Amino acid sequence: MGSAYEALVDRFERYGNLMYASRLLYWDQQVMMPEGGTPARSGQLSALSSASHGLLTDDETGRLIDEAADEDLDDEQAAVLREVRREYERAEPVPESLVERIAETSSDAQPEWRRAKAEDDFDRFAPYLEELRDLQVERAEHIAPDQSPYVTMWEDSEPSLSLSLVEDVFDELVDALVPLIERIEASGVELADPFEGPYPEADQRALSEAALDALGYDWDRGRLDTAPHPFMSGSQFDARVTTRFREGDPLDAVSSTIHEFGHATYQLGLREDKYANPLGMPRSSGVHESQSRFWENHVGRTRPFWEFFLDTFTEHIDGHDDLAVDEVYEAFNRIYPDNLIRVEADELTYHLHIILRSEVGRGFVEGDIAVDELPQVWNEKMEEYLGVVPDTDTDGVLQDIHWTSRFAAFQGYTIGSVLAAQLDHALRQDLDVDALVREGEFAPIREWMTEHVHRHGQRYPTDELIEVATGEPLTAEYFVDYATEKFEALYGL
Amino acid sequence: MGSAYEALVDRFERYGNLMYASRLLYWDQQVMMPEGGTPARSGQLSALSSASHGLLTDDETGRLIDEAADEDLDDEQAAVLREVRREYERAEPVPESLVERIAETSSDAQPEWRRAKAEDDFDRFAPYLEELRDLQVERAEHIAPDQSPYVTMWEDSEPSLSLSLVEDVFDELVDALVPLIERIEASGVELADPFEGPYPEADQRALSEAALDALGYDWDRGRLDTAPHPFMSGSQFDARVTTRFREGDPLDAVSSTIHEFGHATYQLGLREDKYANPLGMPRSSGVHESQSRFWENHVGRTRPFWEFFLDTFTEHIDGHDDLAVDEVYEAFNRIYPDNLIRVEADELTYHLHIILRSEVGRGFVEGDIAVDELPQVWNEKMEEYLGVVPDTDTDGVLQDIHWTSRFAAFQGYTIGSVLAAQLDHALRQDLDVDALVREGEFAPIREWMTEHVHRHGQRYPTDELIEVATGEPLTAEYFVDYATEKFEALYGL
Repeated sequence: MGSAYEALVDRFERYGNLMYASRLLYWDQQVMMPEGGTPARSGQLSALSSASHGLLTDDETGRLIDEAADEDLDDEQAAVLREVRREYERAEPVPESLVERIAETSSDAQPEWRRAKAEDDFDRFAPYLEELRDLQVERAEHIAPDQSPYVTMWEDSEPSLSLSLVEDVFDELVDALVPLIERIEASGVELADPFEGPYPEADQRALSEAALDALGYDWDRGRLDTAPHPFMSGSQFDARVTTRFREGDPLDAVSSTIHEFGHATYQLGLREDKYANPLGMPRSSGVHESQSRFWENHVGRTRPFWEFFLDTFTEHIDGHDDLAVDEVYEAFNRIYPDNLIRVEADELTYHLHIILRSEVGRGFVEGDIAVDELPQVWNEKMEEYLGVVPDTDTDGVLQDIHWTSRFAAFQGYTIGSVLAAQLDHALRQDLDVDALVREGEFAPIREWMTEHVHRHGQRYPTDELIEVATGEPLTAEYFVDYATEKFEALYGL
Repeated sequence: MGSAYEALVDRFERYGNLMYASRLLYWDQQVMMPEGGTPARSGQLSALSSASHGLLTDDETGRLIDEAADEDLDDEQAAVLREVRREYERAEPVPESLVERIAETSSDAQPEWRRAKAEDDFDRFAPYLEELRDLQVERAEHIAPDQSPYVTMWEDSEPSLSLSLVEDVFDELVDALVPLIERIEASGVELADPFEGPYPEADQRALSEAALDALGYDWDRGRLDTAPHPFMSGSQFDARVTTRFREGDPLDAVSSTIHEFGHATYQLGLREDKYANPLGMPRSSGVHESQSRFWENHVGRTRPFWEFFLDTFTEHIDGHDDLAVDEVYEAFNRIYPDNLIRVEADELTYHLHIILRSEVGRGFVEGDIAVDELPQVWNEKMEEYLGVVPDTDTDGVLQDIHWTSRFAAFQGYTIGSVLAAQLDHALRQDLDVDALVREGEFAPIREWMTEHVHRHGQRYPTDELIEVATGEPLTAEYFVDYATEKFEALYGL
């Protein structure tokens, strides 16, 4: 007979495989499934969720965890046990009836949110929002009765990065970004905007494929499709990218493609021998986002990248034979603070949208903001951070579907950008990134990220991983420096 | 609290949903997955199989079956209980270690089969074949210790159609088809063969889509893709068709597409309110095949169909503006008995390939044929039934991958054709099929099949379903009449 540790890992890997199966079903639903397939797919996902939850929370899992803890484990094995225990301890205390009520309420809330958004009718959605909050608070209290439910919700996405550290980072971002954006607006400078279109979808598809080719995407372990909200899905053996094509803006496809390519590099850089095991799984959503943001912003939105990629771009996108590197570089980096919608925001204002949501979410969960106060608080913060106020709740508090499932899930997007800048800084101590990008030599950059981030999987908690990879704790410093330097130059401030 | 019956159905529907999830993963593997994804997909399928097996064979399932049997059930509920009990009784007695050994041996055997086939080296594959046979016999003996293991294997695919009835049907087919094929060969008649190609894939794809449009495929609940071995996958909400494109033969794509469309009509005709429930699942592989063969042969290969479809065909396939209905009708119905390969066989000789496999399979499982005698027995039967002998085992006993998983799984293909002819006969008592097909009015035909076959799901055992749908038990008569009349006319016999 093998050890309890081995039995536990076998069990967890089955659990991990069921999660990957669910994700493939989700990918298919977004990318391939005919519309009529929804009822069947819901049943399949629900059965999978029930099966994986059962496997994880079974008494046998608890018994094996306890036994494995008494065995002689090396550092990697101890890390695996830590991660398995964490998953178990977040799932086991929650009654299955509550899990089901959350799933049902969330599912019921989605069409209500859609209707409320379409009709600009927040009151219609408010009772769902309140019930979901109450259910999520109840869940959090089962998991950790002695701490703020919001902190527990936060730990769902970032188990080992303290919320207070993240909130300090966010404060620094507000202090730096709000005045920087004001200076950009005050400058009156308009960056180049040479694209009108329409640009045929086939051309944009070829361009996206060319971008993936250039960056070194491994087509034997991936594919490119389209989705209304692009995402990446898969594992170290099969990490699929989606993108979208907007008729008038070929840069949107390029940025989506490169962003999702970044996510894919993380997945493809994980250890193959540890598939479905914590050592072969990505660390967290924030670290995942650091990889997408690194490739999107610190590679794709740089001048050296366009020195390399311009010819490929104009080869696929007709009518721009005379396009200059600076034009496309400017067009790719325009700041437009009057935008109200997070998913359409530029590289700077985006983070104020995120910080607003994080503050509103915490206030609502902790009872400082009542449900009927949400629209007003939202608008006040928009005014404070971005100087614009939406005319409708459709463009305000109702814009994101995330409220139908989670209340502390937004921070990862901004942590991703902050960590991307920190990694970029560390990377530049070792490599001449600009020269490599200018030559289209991306392999050394991918390999550096694999060496410093990907191959660790969940070997380290997030805070330790950041120190292992960059030599210091998470800090806003590098993102603020990068953003200030880049946009001061672009806008001649 | 609900009844034991309700709890049992809920449990079975979760099991059913896990099966559909597995099939989606399989569809993706064949159609979408990049090559590198194999190791991860194997892990996912194995975890799903383990989860669904666990759900089905759990003590709780047995307890609920016993309790439900004492409840007051209506006819439909009794049918559900019968089917659930059957699944349980086929899975529960088999030790999990044996299930795993079968899965592993089957998986190990596949690359060996591939190599043996490539190198025409039967001896290399023989030990795997023997081990697989022994393991499958062991499994069958766990399920039904008192009957021939071969019968148990047969019942895996057709639970309620007696093997002796099927073997009688097969004897009648041999008696009718062998002389008919000999007369065709002796006639010296060569049917038209006007296609050479190459025909571009895009044209063939458009042709296949046009065929599906014409037949009334519901694109909101399906899609068309390509696969090396076309298949249909899905449920009443999402039944996907695959086809293939051969450069020199556009009729191959048409027949594959119509065949898989037939499978899809069955799936799409099942009750939506009984998804993942036996009442909303197809009866058996033989009945499924009757639907694909009905549409392929009794619609697609008829003269009225080509009177309707010829213009659409020549619109998509260049270079045949002067094609006559009779030419394409003949080309679609050519008989070529010198072919050695089942999957490339024509409408008549195909069944002799199947009957050969059924006889060889039974003899091998029951110990009448030793493993090293298989190649010789194979060749003798080829000589007897088709008058040709393969030069190599590659084109003989090694041609099918099915031996790596099952030994009694071939009959369904021929039962499908026999039942298709029987259904066609019954249908023609109610509808003027030729006139409808000639007008491209397929809806009444689809609806008849839904009414008489699809909507019953597993309400009746196969033998009863055949009587409900056609008024009599399975008989070779209609297929023999249909084939004799059609090919005597075509070959002027």
